[in-house]
Amino acid sequence: MKNTAQVDVLESMALGRALAAHSHELKNVLAIVGEAAGLAEDILALQRMRNPESAMPEDMAARVDKALGSITAQVERGHKLTSDLNMLAHLPDRRLEPTLPDVDLSLIAGLACRMLERNARRAHVQLSPPAAVGATAPADAQGCLAACLVLLEWIYKSRQPGEEVAVAAVDGAPAIEIPDAPDLDGLPEDVRRLTESAGMELETDNDRLRVTLMGV
Amino acid sequence: MKNTAQVDVLESMALGRALAAHSHELKNVLAIVGEAAGLAEDILALQRMRNPESAMPEDMAARVDKALGSITAQVERGHKLTSDLNMLAHLPDRRLEPTLPDVDLSLIAGLACRMLERNARRAHVQLSPPAAVGATAPADAQGCLAACLVLLEWIYKSRQPGEEVAVAAVDGAPAIEIPDAPDLDGLPEDVRRLTESAGMELETDNDRLRVTLMGV
Repeated sequence: MKNTAQVDVLESMALGRALAAHSHELKNVLAIVGEAAGLAEDILALQRMRNPESAMPEDMAARVDKALGSITAQVERGHKLTSDLNMLAHLPDRRLEPTLPDVDLSLIAGLACRMLERNARRAHVQLSPPAAVGATAPADAQGCLAACLVLLEWIYKSRQPGEEVAVAAVDGAPAIEIPDAPDLDGLPEDVRRLTESAGMELETDNDRLRVTLMGV
Repeated sequence: MKNTAQVDVLESMALGRALAAHSHELKNVLAIVGEAAGLAEDILALQRMRNPESAMPEDMAARVDKALGSITAQVERGHKLTSDLNMLAHLPDRRLEPTLPDVDLSLIAGLACRMLERNARRAHVQLSPPAAVGATAPADAQGCLAACLVLLEWIYKSRQPGEEVAVAAVDGAPAIEIPDAPDLDGLPEDVRRLTESAGMELETDNDRLRVTLMGV
């Protein structure tokens, strides 16, 4: 039923706005949780300081502290996850606003690594996002993410348990590199289609895969 | 750069899988937070019961209880939000698995209401999702959601502060109804395109808008 590219743009914009709204709601949830946990910690610490003689036994206090501390740690983890969702929500923005900045493939690949982390972990493979940023190219950010997702899925599934897939930015180029990549002759059809559609060029040199965002 | 519908399908599937993984991670975050808050409550209650003489002053205990209670309430709210994200993540599934069940427009409209709630609340308009379910029709769930989102956005923005947009399922029909809808002559172009592409038919009878999912 989709007859125009315009429908796709409108659809992705509407879904992006809705996802952004829900990410913000989740950020609020986490912020309230974090504040409440901090408040409870403060009150308990104050009580101990003021009335050391009536304080609860140390082992119980330690268990309460540990529980509140784990809440704070989870809130931190949740904030990172919702920031990723917010980034995901805003990927289509450039489809309607071509004046927005160009796409940095290493940032997109980093998001893809984080979103695949859970599944890679189950296969006991570590996905490491690029530590640095790269150069930018005009491209469709959402298409780039989808391409990175299927490409990295293909790569981590080729690895043995305990191995790492280390994605690196290429200094000064709109490209990323991944060592020990599988042979491009075995590139699955969906990976070929999505990388091609996103304007990416794949080449290997001594098993080192370089993905260059040619721009569209 | 998108040259085939197949690329769109592959793209939406890859993004859906990644969104589903992140929703699950957030569910885990919330589950750990909820358990930790419950544990802290239990330990504090146990301490009070065992050593009432060394218990902390009532006002302090009440403040700690209130903080822990607000964590539990926010976890509940967060779980609803992540369930919505999970539903959003699985909308494209039917694009590759046409044997999956048909689409219930009232469920999709309910999701759209919840995802627009934050923005509608800012305009002081209440968006009420359908209370019942309707009949199903073969359609693209993600396209239906995008269409519902822009349609409901258009409708709630036409309302005065304090008003309600009540979406109702139509018994036995793959349709929803919305009373006091604006005139269809003023239907924005994006709403027309997305509802048409999703296979929806719009008609008004005495300002009551009926949206029927004709199926695709």
